[in-house]
Amino acid sequence: MLINDKHYRAVWFEDGKVKMIDQPLLPHKFEIVEYSDYRDVAKAIKTMVIRGAPSIGAAGAYGMALASVQGEDLKEAAEVLSKTRPTAQDLFYGIEKVLKEVKSGKDAVKIADQIADDYADSCEKIGEYGAKLLKDGMRINTHCNAGWLATLDWGTALSPVYKAKRQGKDVFVFVDETRPRSQGSRLTAYELLEEGVDHAVIADNATGYFMKKGEIDMVIVGSDRIAINGDVANKIGTYARAVLAKENNIPFYVAAPIATIDQKSSSGDDIPIEERNSDEVLFACGYDEDTKAMKKVRIAPKGSKARNPAFDVTPAKYIKGIITEKGIFKPEELQGLFKK
Amino acid sequence: MLINDKHYRAVWFEDGKVKMIDQPLLPHKFEIVEYSDYRDVAKAIKTMVIRGAPSIGAAGAYGMALASVQGEDLKEAAEVLSKTRPTAQDLFYGIEKVLKEVKSGKDAVKIADQIADDYADSCEKIGEYGAKLLKDGMRINTHCNAGWLATLDWGTALSPVYKAKRQGKDVFVFVDETRPRSQGSRLTAYELLEEGVDHAVIADNATGYFMKKGEIDMVIVGSDRIAINGDVANKIGTYARAVLAKENNIPFYVAAPIATIDQKSSSGDDIPIEERNSDEVLFACGYDEDTKAMKKVRIAPKGSKARNPAFDVTPAKYIKGIITEKGIFKPEELQGLFKK
Repeated sequence: MLINDKHYRAVWFEDGKVKMIDQPLLPHKFEIVEYSDYRDVAKAIKTMVIRGAPSIGAAGAYGMALASVQGEDLKEAAEVLSKTRPTAQDLFYGIEKVLKEVKSGKDAVKIADQIADDYADSCEKIGEYGAKLLKDGMRINTHCNAGWLATLDWGTALSPVYKAKRQGKDVFVFVDETRPRSQGSRLTAYELLEEGVDHAVIADNATGYFMKKGEIDMVIVGSDRIAINGDVANKIGTYARAVLAKENNIPFYVAAPIATIDQKSSSGDDIPIEERNSDEVLFACGYDEDTKAMKKVRIAPKGSKARNPAFDVTPAKYIKGIITEKGIFKPEELQGLFKK
Repeated sequence: MLINDKHYRAVWFEDGKVKMIDQPLLPHKFEIVEYSDYRDVAKAIKTMVIRGAPSIGAAGAYGMALASVQGEDLKEAAEVLSKTRPTAQDLFYGIEKVLKEVKSGKDAVKIADQIADDYADSCEKIGEYGAKLLKDGMRINTHCNAGWLATLDWGTALSPVYKAKRQGKDVFVFVDETRPRSQGSRLTAYELLEEGVDHAVIADNATGYFMKKGEIDMVIVGSDRIAINGDVANKIGTYARAVLAKENNIPFYVAAPIATIDQKSSSGDDIPIEERNSDEVLFACGYDEDTKAMKKVRIAPKGSKARNPAFDVTPAKYIKGIITEKGIFKPEELQGLFKK
């Protein structure tokens, strides 16, 4: 997608190097980092220079390609790259695929490029299906960042918005700030700004207000994991939006690749919710315009504790449809996708 | 209420001076500022050294008392003090009362003290009625700061919590951060910490999660204005909590003095909602532990706009009861309070 009117993906291979956008600097600085050693790619994944499951999957694959080009021990590289993030299914998939296919004589960079193209294609298809729901003049609410920075290209929840925009439809996005890590204000707003999509950042507290006022026509969010009954795990605060949308008769959609559906989770109760470090709530992180550097400031008093669940589960009953690369499904239709 | 185990009010008169707690420094620094000129008291109200309608009302009255003690022109003082904040009904009430009663020969400081005592008494009574709802072990959710810093002493939404605690009941408070101005993390958490009430700060996104998990037993919020039909205007995000509470069968209470009920507003539609400066959303403000000073950091990209409604209206149907100094009323009972 576009940055300064030039097309980028979150990570790519060029001039014998792995290149990626330095995401922690966004939206305040746009810098591309280059790696000539797969160990540095591993470090970049670990320190979240790149984030989002598909983007991490491609980064892992490109890390393997780099190791291959440089004649390194591929089994060792696979081990180092795998140990960077514990839960990203896509990461292991990307690494394993390169490791396996290289053995049958294929070019490692081409394999990694294919993995990246597949991610981009899936997301673009999500956009094509989703854009059919979007009418000219619609005002969409989204939560967190389910955009192209997280998914290599196009995004999930934002892909329909980008497609609709390129189809000439006028769309407006209410961007939830998404405390505590502010991925909405930082990343979603940045993506929309660079793609020229009209938008407004709002405090997470204001979404209900705009729904009740009739200023929001649809909600589209991404997902970290979808249970087979249609319950959806996503960034904390998603559940609140779903309840508010239902109360105000606003359709609530989830956009995600089929791979996000976890057949082993029969319902949302099977999805574990991580509680993260309470400092994320007690502090806020942003750009200090005086020193031109990132800065962490304390919001709450020393001595106060915080609770910080990172995700919540939205029951299927609040969800109008799940937008995938294979079409739009009702939550109760998911089970059928996996039956022969 | 308590700070470092000593009792304070938000503003008071002592040694011929008006003294107040410097609220913008909280919770990071506790400092008392003193004024020997009513013009400086006016400046303090204007720059929000003190905030919250009843606290401002008392500050206006004490400003008049100071002018009287110093032999200043009281009509001029009333004019200067009135021009500080445009919408605070209590401010005009405090100033006018001193101006009027001084003419009949009463001591200005005593009049101001009486106004302050009346505020404190009302809030304490709200606490007494509200505490009857609180059982040992209950977990309360509150939004924004409706504590004693805003109301001189005791608070509104927090007064029942403080009363219950002093009655020996064990209560726990989930404190909504309350973006964009973070009055929850900054002020409510600070008050609770100093009063020894167990609590956790949570992102505004997490309230629904804890409600659904069954970890919240009751919601109590304050109010800026209550329409005669029981619709309640309060800090942005209050409406979302009310809807989520209803969906999860959790009682939702509003605590406010009778004076907050506006007989001229027949419903919430009559209450205008202020949209504040978008910088509040695009930036976050906190304490820089390196430089030991307050710091504003940018969250969103330059070029992104924000929408920033400061309040929302919660329809009466979501409200279980309104806790006042005269008892707890159902929304539909408010009308009857004003009939002879």
